[in-house]
Amino acid sequence: MSTYTIGIDYGTNSVRAIVVDCADGRVIGTSVFDYPSGAQGVLLHPKDPHLARQNPADCIQGLRASVTGALAEAQRTAGFSAADIIGIGVDTTGSTPLPIDAQARPLAMDPAWRANLAAHAWLWKDHTAADEAARITAIAREHAPEYLAPIGGTYSSEWWWSKIWHCLNVAPDVFAAAASWVELADFIPAVLAGVDDPKQIVRCVCAAGHKAMYADVWGGLPSKTFLARLDPKLAELRDRLYDTAYPPGRPAGSLSPDWAATLGLRPGIAIAMGGFDAHYGAVGSGIRSGTLVKIIGTSTCDCAVAPAAGRIADIPGICGTIDGSIMPGYFGIEAGQSAVGDILNWWVGFCQGDDSLHGALSQQAARLAPGESGLLALDWNNGNRTILVDPRLSGLLLGQTLRTTPDEVYRALIEATAFGARAIIERLREYGVPIERVVCCGGIAEKNDLFMQIYADVIGQPMLIAGSPQTPALGAAISAAVTAGAAAGGYDDWTAAQDRMTTLRDRHFVPDPAAQAVYDELYGIYRELHDTFGAVAGARAELGTIMKRLLAIKERATR
Amino acid sequence: MSTYTIGIDYGTNSVRAIVVDCADGRVIGTSVFDYPSGAQGVLLHPKDPHLARQNPADCIQGLRASVTGALAEAQRTAGFSAADIIGIGVDTTGSTPLPIDAQARPLAMDPAWRANLAAHAWLWKDHTAADEAARITAIAREHAPEYLAPIGGTYSSEWWWSKIWHCLNVAPDVFAAAASWVELADFIPAVLAGVDDPKQIVRCVCAAGHKAMYADVWGGLPSKTFLARLDPKLAELRDRLYDTAYPPGRPAGSLSPDWAATLGLRPGIAIAMGGFDAHYGAVGSGIRSGTLVKIIGTSTCDCAVAPAAGRIADIPGICGTIDGSIMPGYFGIEAGQSAVGDILNWWVGFCQGDDSLHGALSQQAARLAPGESGLLALDWNNGNRTILVDPRLSGLLLGQTLRTTPDEVYRALIEATAFGARAIIERLREYGVPIERVVCCGGIAEKNDLFMQIYADVIGQPMLIAGSPQTPALGAAISAAVTAGAAAGGYDDWTAAQDRMTTLRDRHFVPDPAAQAVYDELYGIYRELHDTFGAVAGARAELGTIMKRLLAIKERATR
Repeated sequence: MSTYTIGIDYGTNSVRAIVVDCADGRVIGTSVFDYPSGAQGVLLHPKDPHLARQNPADCIQGLRASVTGALAEAQRTAGFSAADIIGIGVDTTGSTPLPIDAQARPLAMDPAWRANLAAHAWLWKDHTAADEAARITAIAREHAPEYLAPIGGTYSSEWWWSKIWHCLNVAPDVFAAAASWVELADFIPAVLAGVDDPKQIVRCVCAAGHKAMYADVWGGLPSKTFLARLDPKLAELRDRLYDTAYPPGRPAGSLSPDWAATLGLRPGIAIAMGGFDAHYGAVGSGIRSGTLVKIIGTSTCDCAVAPAAGRIADIPGICGTIDGSIMPGYFGIEAGQSAVGDILNWWVGFCQGDDSLHGALSQQAARLAPGESGLLALDWNNGNRTILVDPRLSGLLLGQTLRTTPDEVYRALIEATAFGARAIIERLREYGVPIERVVCCGGIAEKNDLFMQIYADVIGQPMLIAGSPQTPALGAAISAAVTAGAAAGGYDDWTAAQDRMTTLRDRHFVPDPAAQAVYDELYGIYRELHDTFGAVAGARAELGTIMKRLLAIKERATR
Repeated sequence: MSTYTIGIDYGTNSVRAIVVDCADGRVIGTSVFDYPSGAQGVLLHPKDPHLARQNPADCIQGLRASVTGALAEAQRTAGFSAADIIGIGVDTTGSTPLPIDAQARPLAMDPAWRANLAAHAWLWKDHTAADEAARITAIAREHAPEYLAPIGGTYSSEWWWSKIWHCLNVAPDVFAAAASWVELADFIPAVLAGVDDPKQIVRCVCAAGHKAMYADVWGGLPSKTFLARLDPKLAELRDRLYDTAYPPGRPAGSLSPDWAATLGLRPGIAIAMGGFDAHYGAVGSGIRSGTLVKIIGTSTCDCAVAPAAGRIADIPGICGTIDGSIMPGYFGIEAGQSAVGDILNWWVGFCQGDDSLHGALSQQAARLAPGESGLLALDWNNGNRTILVDPRLSGLLLGQTLRTTPDEVYRALIEATAFGARAIIERLREYGVPIERVVCCGGIAEKNDLFMQIYADVIGQPMLIAGSPQTPALGAAISAAVTAGAAAGGYDDWTAAQDRMTTLRDRHFVPDPAAQAVYDELYGIYRELHDTFGAVAGARAELGTIMKRLLAIKERATR
């Protein structure tokens, strides 16, 4: 008898559910739900470009819509029955924390708070908490450097504590009304399990370890002493959060009778641990030791794993090296670029184009030889996540003449993101993480040949492409199959599940030696600009503050 | 009885003639002739963006067409008769040298040479001779530093010897066929005077001093010994050029019977010394000690004068400080920016717009406060003429986010050119040239209020606007009136002629103190980038070569 799991992927603009055959990873049902709130699902503030929130009501509405939609499609497959679903897995963006009440309900779903942007989910790309992040970094460097060591040495404005502290500072009423806070990745499984008490929410080490300075060695979350140095109210909050976080492979709960009825599934089936889209995307791409998985979307997330039995060095500027965050038994290593597709989308919008302009610009840019435009860009329009961990950086374009054209800039922007990708790989290798294979997934990897060829040429390694176009959802479905276990028709062994349920495409991109030589030279120049404007130690200090000084002037001018 | 002069202004794309009343500078006839050859009159090479030539046949055709057109319009003024014209003045772009044959005819007008771009006029903005310019600078620094002292310390690829030497290197057949070479500014007066022998062409010190390293103190043009260090063939050429060059105020000749008949004018009337458009534009704007005249067009030329009786320091990076180059009895000081309007035109074309987009972008950009975009640009898309004297620099834009818009970039580009303008003024003041008044002329000054306000705010001085929309042609007409002399119904005194024949507009732009404060801060950052990427002594050396390294890679990739 065939068995199936459901993978649910919460993205920035929509949620996607898939129904997957446990035997071979084949997808027999898919449904996408676009979040109805804000601008394509993102709540914005007209005066503050750093603000990005999400309406939790959209997520719950989308849970029902996407799963029932995917099941409806699966019904068309002969022999499929919803009773053959043995588990559900969920991945989400992150760090995307939201405040909840004493019944584990989002504050934003209470009409009293709905109009307050601080009561909604603080989307991963919200950068309002830059000051708090800088203070957390400074205080941790002085008092608890061990907290920063596994997460790259710098705490980010995109992460859990920065955002919650910023909420306390700018919306103390919301902070006071919150019984607890929860990552969206933990919230959705708790909803499916019918949890009505914040303390009963099962927290994943993926979010806890990478974003909340959680580690078993120091007793979980940062100490109350440390949190009190930020604000005594954060120390108080610690008791209302959680003591232990878990790797995937164990259940986050089982499907509640209510949600089973809503979705038309068997009550009690396994709910996998929640996880971040990137990590489950890595699982769905067949991650293993020596493989770097690049999830290339509006931003990019790079994932690698290393056996947890060995010792692993803390890697400066790498977002996280966390035991069990991607798969149990391995250190999960996460890096990333804050804007990749977003930079190209910005450029297309800048040129007054719609989506079709990507194709036209790519076609024109493909006629250029490497170096022919004379342009070089930095990929920092949304800051730098790895290896500088600095959101207050901005874009740079150099080499314009009076003949520079939009397609030349488009190519230079692709190249800039490729140089940023190479900087990450070089940093990982410097610290002993082997990268023998690069597997890419995400829409750009599937659609933009120019982009992929430039990446192969810049990185100097073949670019492979994951077989599934929905690797995060597939990874969540694989996690659900492992959580359900072999006895239920799933798997007991993680690698066995991946071997059966993931594939690679035949299509891949091989470096061209001549292009590689030019890009080696251009990458050298990129690193000079990168190190100068990124204020890497040893670089000229004054230039390293220019972007921040311009931002400060901009903020004064906008106020 | 009223008297009149004709001013003829040879621009990059067209030639304009005006008929001017000597009593008050009133223009009673105007006619513009667009050059028919190439792209808007500029001959380009599909593979070499640095090449820009002009067809001398266009200039001669345009001489007849523009003057007869202007006279036809003047005939509508009651009492006007072509017999009342007492002189003709000519200004042109420069350095724009052209090869001529033994009868002083342009080689390019000989069918045997017409197809050879090297036989045409080498337009001011031709940058093909960058290598030759660098070698001239190096050789002069070692063997004859006095040659470089009055022209800013660096010889430019835009200038006379660089271009002629480049012709010798890339088109030796053209070089060998040339009996002599002549600046367009000297060629047109010689045409009007019917000169048929290169040695009879009267050469202006304006072109000779600013562009050809001519000075009376070292016996005219550079010595044969020096020229032989470049190439023995250039030393040989020296004998076929000229021994003496003259300031304006004396005649370049008198109107030949043939041209008098062609144009319908009295034969024998005075032909003023030719001059560069910028210098005659300064005259037509009422230049005097303490006044900086900014001629703002596709590029910008800044002119000042200082009494020749005093000593004047050589000013590093200033294109020239030449005795008599603007008016007799004064040092003429010339500085400039290689692209101003050209940068804005590039941006409008980049945005796929036509001329009307300037208005729309200006309107949107005017809504931004200084500093609000967070952007900062360098104005080097066509290199830097003053104060770095380096054509192998390129553009830079910094501070982009994912929300940056084309109008924000448009404003940043205007600001960049304003910062470049301020750098010039600061350099002049540092070396004791008083700047108490800034008078602007050119299309942008007349049409773009945003541009002018930004200039006032960045420079911190009111921006006045010359009364005439055609100051170069008016200046040439004033020169003709002085050359004709009071006895003929003109003037003996230069300043008296300017006082009568030039005006200022009521419309002007006064600095806003709040904007000025922000721009002072942004200018500081501009100077950091300027000094770093321009390799100003003391700045980090490696970054100062980045633009050149990218250009070298580009040239390799294009080859």
